[in-house]
Amino acid sequence: MISFPKPTVEQFFRTYTITNFSVSSDEKRLVFNANLNGKMNLWAMDLPDTNPYLFAHRDESCSFIEFDPKNRYVLAGYDKDGDENYQIYAMPSEGGLPEPLITGEASEKYYFSHLSEDGERVYYGTSEENPSYLNTRVRNLQNGEDTLLNVGEISPTQLAAVSENEEASVYLRAFANTYVVGFVKIGEETFNITPDPQKVHVALEPIFTDNETIYFVTDYDSDDMYLAKFDLNAKEFSKVIALDGESIQSIKWDKENKAFYLVTVKGVTDVLYRYGLDTGKVENCALPVDIIEQTYLAKSGTLYILGRSATVPQNIYQSSNGGGWKQLTNNRVLGLSQEDMVEPDVVSYTTFDGMEIEALLFKAKPENDNGHTIFWPHGGPQAAERKMFRSMFQCFTNRGYAIFAPNFRGSTGYGSAFTKLVEQDWGEGPRLDCVAGIEWLFENGLTDRNKLFLVGGSYGGYMALLLHGRHPEYFKAVVDIFGPSDLFTFVNSVPAHWKPIMERWLGDPERDKERFIQDSPVTYLDSIVKPMLVIQGAKDPRVVKEESDQIVAKLQEKGRDVEYLVLEDEGHGFSKKENEIKVYSLMLEFLEKHQS
Amino acid sequence: MISFPKPTVEQFFRTYTITNFSVSSDEKRLVFNANLNGKMNLWAMDLPDTNPYLFAHRDESCSFIEFDPKNRYVLAGYDKDGDENYQIYAMPSEGGLPEPLITGEASEKYYFSHLSEDGERVYYGTSEENPSYLNTRVRNLQNGEDTLLNVGEISPTQLAAVSENEEASVYLRAFANTYVVGFVKIGEETFNITPDPQKVHVALEPIFTDNETIYFVTDYDSDDMYLAKFDLNAKEFSKVIALDGESIQSIKWDKENKAFYLVTVKGVTDVLYRYGLDTGKVENCALPVDIIEQTYLAKSGTLYILGRSATVPQNIYQSSNGGGWKQLTNNRVLGLSQEDMVEPDVVSYTTFDGMEIEALLFKAKPENDNGHTIFWPHGGPQAAERKMFRSMFQCFTNRGYAIFAPNFRGSTGYGSAFTKLVEQDWGEGPRLDCVAGIEWLFENGLTDRNKLFLVGGSYGGYMALLLHGRHPEYFKAVVDIFGPSDLFTFVNSVPAHWKPIMERWLGDPERDKERFIQDSPVTYLDSIVKPMLVIQGAKDPRVVKEESDQIVAKLQEKGRDVEYLVLEDEGHGFSKKENEIKVYSLMLEFLEKHQS
Repeated sequence: MISFPKPTVEQFFRTYTITNFSVSSDEKRLVFNANLNGKMNLWAMDLPDTNPYLFAHRDESCSFIEFDPKNRYVLAGYDKDGDENYQIYAMPSEGGLPEPLITGEASEKYYFSHLSEDGERVYYGTSEENPSYLNTRVRNLQNGEDTLLNVGEISPTQLAAVSENEEASVYLRAFANTYVVGFVKIGEETFNITPDPQKVHVALEPIFTDNETIYFVTDYDSDDMYLAKFDLNAKEFSKVIALDGESIQSIKWDKENKAFYLVTVKGVTDVLYRYGLDTGKVENCALPVDIIEQTYLAKSGTLYILGRSATVPQNIYQSSNGGGWKQLTNNRVLGLSQEDMVEPDVVSYTTFDGMEIEALLFKAKPENDNGHTIFWPHGGPQAAERKMFRSMFQCFTNRGYAIFAPNFRGSTGYGSAFTKLVEQDWGEGPRLDCVAGIEWLFENGLTDRNKLFLVGGSYGGYMALLLHGRHPEYFKAVVDIFGPSDLFTFVNSVPAHWKPIMERWLGDPERDKERFIQDSPVTYLDSIVKPMLVIQGAKDPRVVKEESDQIVAKLQEKGRDVEYLVLEDEGHGFSKKENEIKVYSLMLEFLEKHQS
Repeated sequence: MISFPKPTVEQFFRTYTITNFSVSSDEKRLVFNANLNGKMNLWAMDLPDTNPYLFAHRDESCSFIEFDPKNRYVLAGYDKDGDENYQIYAMPSEGGLPEPLITGEASEKYYFSHLSEDGERVYYGTSEENPSYLNTRVRNLQNGEDTLLNVGEISPTQLAAVSENEEASVYLRAFANTYVVGFVKIGEETFNITPDPQKVHVALEPIFTDNETIYFVTDYDSDDMYLAKFDLNAKEFSKVIALDGESIQSIKWDKENKAFYLVTVKGVTDVLYRYGLDTGKVENCALPVDIIEQTYLAKSGTLYILGRSATVPQNIYQSSNGGGWKQLTNNRVLGLSQEDMVEPDVVSYTTFDGMEIEALLFKAKPENDNGHTIFWPHGGPQAAERKMFRSMFQCFTNRGYAIFAPNFRGSTGYGSAFTKLVEQDWGEGPRLDCVAGIEWLFENGLTDRNKLFLVGGSYGGYMALLLHGRHPEYFKAVVDIFGPSDLFTFVNSVPAHWKPIMERWLGDPERDKERFIQDSPVTYLDSIVKPMLVIQGAKDPRVVKEESDQIVAKLQEKGRDVEYLVLEDEGHGFSKKENEIKVYSLMLEFLEKHQS
C-alpha cells in the first residue's frame, strides 16, 4: 500500500555502542557506558526495571565503572576525544556530573586497578614519573594520602589483583601481547606466579580466592590458555583445568558456591563454562550471544554479560541462578529485524605454506547482491574477526557487497603459537595468507577478479596499504582507516608504555632495517595506483595522524586519486554517532563510485 | 569522603521532553516522541518490556503519531527546525526513516485529522490553496486518489472527527481560542452541533460514539466546559454532565464499557474522572501526576497518559483495568531526587479591581536561597502556569532564586469569562494584575524591592517588555524570550491561518490604533533602561524574529545594555538539547551578573 525504500547507511549506524558496565553491590543499579544520546555517556537502570536514564554526562569515552561497595559514590575513567589518556573521576551514587578524583596533566594516564572492600582505598597505575613502565599507587579517600606501591621496571607493569587483607598484590609485566608474566608482591618480597618467567607465556586475570591463593589463566607450557593456581604459602604453581582446543580468556569467581565461570575462545565464537572447584565438574552454559565482551558476577550468583552476535548488536543480559537470559538493554538496528541481517559462513582455506586459515564470509542476500566483494583484513593484528555485530558489515552486505574476513596468521583464537606468527613478521606471512584468501575467493567462484575492494582499519589499514602496494592488480579501490604507512616512523610514535613491547611485536628499526623497508607500505608508492580513501582520527594515540598524512601527501604529489578525511575529535575509532555515520556514508559512496 | 559540588544548569536540562505518543492497536508497541538522543526523534518500546529503542530518526519535531490499525505502517507529522509547517510522513511498522506521504512545498502545512478503521484513507487538513481557512482532503492509500472534502471559509476550519461509516464528519471553525463552533457535515448538508453559532462559545473534542451520536465538550451557556451531545437523527443538542467548578478539557470513549474518561482542569492541577454513560456514575481516578498532557485509551480499556508534576519531568504511565499506574518511561533530573526539587506554593492575591488572582510561588530551599525573586508572566496568554515540571524553574530555584508566576486575567483554568478578559486587552488588565502581584510580593515580605528580576517567553516575553517599559523601577534586569515588541507588526506577521482570529484576540490595528500604541512595548523605549537579554529562534513562525530584531536594534541605538541571542535552528521553543542548555546557561549567567 505504502512502499518504503531500502534501508540506508544511517539505519545501520543508529545502533549504539556499549563498551562496559557495572552493577552495584545490592544489584539495584546497573550502569553502562553507551552512545545512546549520540556521544558516550553513562546510563543507569534501577533493576529489576530496565528503563535506562542518564546517569553521568561528560560526552567522553569511559574506560571503567566501579561502584563503592557501600554505595556512596561511583568511579569512572574518562579520556579526552579518544586520546586514551584515561584519568579517574567520581560521581555521587545517584549520578551527576563526573568530578576529577585522581587526575593530572592532560598527557598523563591514571588507570584504575582495584578498590578496597570498604571502598576507601583506590589502587591505580599511572604514567606520572614513569611513562614507559608505569607506577602503581594507592589513594586513601578518607585522608587524601597517596602512597607509591610499586615502581614499574623492565617493561610496563600494572597491578591486577589485591588480596582481601590488602597484604598481597599481583602485578603483570607485559613484554608483548603474547608474553606477560605475573608476580606477587608481599611487602618488598616478590614471587613469580609461573615457574619460569624467562619462558615466553602469558599470565592473566589473577583472582585471589582467599588471602593465600591466586587463580589465573596462562598458556605456560601449552598452546592454549588454561586455569592455573599459585599457592602463596607453598609458593607453588599448579595447573587446575584445561579445556581441549579452547583458550580460557576470562574468569569470574563465585565465592559462595566455590565455582568459576570460564569464558573460552573457540575460533570465531565464545563459550561459557561453570567449573565447580570442589566437584571438578565442568558445565557448558547456554549463551544468548556468540561473543562475550564483559562478564560481571554479583555476590548473589547472578551473572551479567555484555555481548553480541553477528546479527545482534551489543546488549547486556542477566542470568539469575543458572536460569535463562534476560535481555536488559534494547540495542537494535533501526527498522530492521534480525532476519534482515547476514549471518556469516565460517569457511577455511589452505594458505601458501599448507596451514589452514579460518575466515568469515558474509554473503549479500540474492535480492541485494551487487556482485562485488570487500576484502577485510582485521586490526590487531593479534585479534580476530569473529561473529560480532558490525554496523559496517551489515550495512555493506545490505547494499549488496560480500565481505571476506580471514583470520590470517597472528590472529587470536587458534592457539598461542599461531598468534605469535605475526611477531616480527607484519608484512610477509599474514600478507601471503591474505593473498591466498583472495585467490581462494576467485577459485571458488565467490568473487570476480575485477570486482574486489579492499578495506581495513588499524593493522588492517596497514595491510590494506601493503596489499595495495604489492598487489594492486587485485583491487578496484582501497580504503585505509588509520593504518600505519611507514614502520620506521610508526615504531617511534606509539604511546610511551607501548615502546617496551614494540621490539618483540614488530622488531627493531636498526637490526631489522631490511625487513622494515620491505614491510612498509611507503616502500611501494609507485604501485599504489588504485583510487584510495584514507580516514584518520586527529587524536589517535596509537596510529598517529602523521602516518596517514605522509602517505596521502606522497601519493597526492604523484597525482594519485586519494581522498583524505580527518576527524578532529576522534582517536583510534569513532565514538561519536555523527562521525561514524559520516565516515561510513563516505566509504559507501567511495565504493559505489568505483564499482564501474 | 568524596565531596561533590552543587548541581549545575546542565543537570537540570539533561531531562528530556516527551511531546506525544501513541500505542498500536494490539498494544504491543508504544511509540513516543522525545529528545532522548539530543534531538526530537521517535522511540518505541515493545510492551510489556519498557526498554526504549530508536524507532524513527529525523531529528525534527513530530506533531502526531498514528498507527495503521492493521500494523502495516505508522504515520507521523514533521516540521523543519521548528517552523511548524507540519507535513505527513510514513514509516514501516517496524520503524525506520520517515518517508514523505502527504507533503508539498516547504511553506505548506498538512495536518493529520483521521485514519479510517481499515487504515486505508487518511483525512487531513492543508494550507494548500487555502492558507487562511484551510482545506480538508482525504487520501486513498490504495489507489493514491486524493479528494477535496471541504473548503474552509469564514475562519480556519478543521476536520475533527469522522464517523465509523465515514458518512458524517465534524468540523471545527475557530474564531478565537474562546470561540470555536462545531458543525457536522453529511454529504453537502451541514448542521451546527450547538444551538446558536453566533453565541461566543467553544465546542471541542468531538467523538462519534456511533454513526448517529456525537459527544463533545463545550462551554455553551456556561462559564465551564461540560460534556454535551448532538443527536444526528433528531438534530438535537443536549447537555450530558458538568463538573462543578471544573472545566472538562479532553474526553476518551471506552466503547466496550460505555464510559467516558474526562480530564478536567482545576486551577493549577488536572483531575481525571470516569463517567459511566448508563450508570451516570462519576468516579474520581487517582493520578500519578498533577498535569495530564495526553491520554490514550486502548480498546482493551487500558489507559495511557503522558504527564508531569512540578517536581517530576514528563513521563508516560499505564493503568490497566483501573489498576494502579505503571511508569513506562524513566525521565528524571540527572543526579537529583524528587526531594531535591521545589514544590510550589499555590497562593492568591487581590488585584487592582478586586478580583482574586492565583499564582505559583516556588521558594528556594533555605540552604540555596540567594534572596532574589524572578517574576514570570506565562505565555499564551490564554494558557496558565500550572504544576508542571520546568527544568528552568527547578534549576533556578536550586541556584537560589524564588519564582513567582501569577495566573493573571486571560489565564485558562478559572472559567471562560476570566480567560476572555485578555481579549482585546493585552496590555492593561493583565499588566495591572502583574503589578498587583509584584506589590503583593513586597508587602508580604517575600521579595526585597531591589531584588526582583523579570523573565518571560512568548506572551510572557511581551509582558516582560511591557512591564519593563512601564515599570522599570521594579526590576534589576529583564529577560525576553521571543516576545512581540510591537503589536502593529506582530498582528501582520503571524501565520496566515492565525490572521482570522487575531481581530477578536488582539484587536484591529486601524480601529484600535490608540490601544495598540498604548500596549506596544516599543512605545516605551525611553524607559526600557535596565539590562536586558533577548532570546529568539530564527525560524519562529508565531513571533517572528523581526519582533526581537527591531527592539534590540532600537535599544542598542540608544546605548542600552542589551544582549541578543538568536538560535538559527529553532522556532517558538527550544527542541534541541544543546540549544536549551546554551540558552538557560546564558540566562543564569545574565541574572547572576546583575544580582549586585
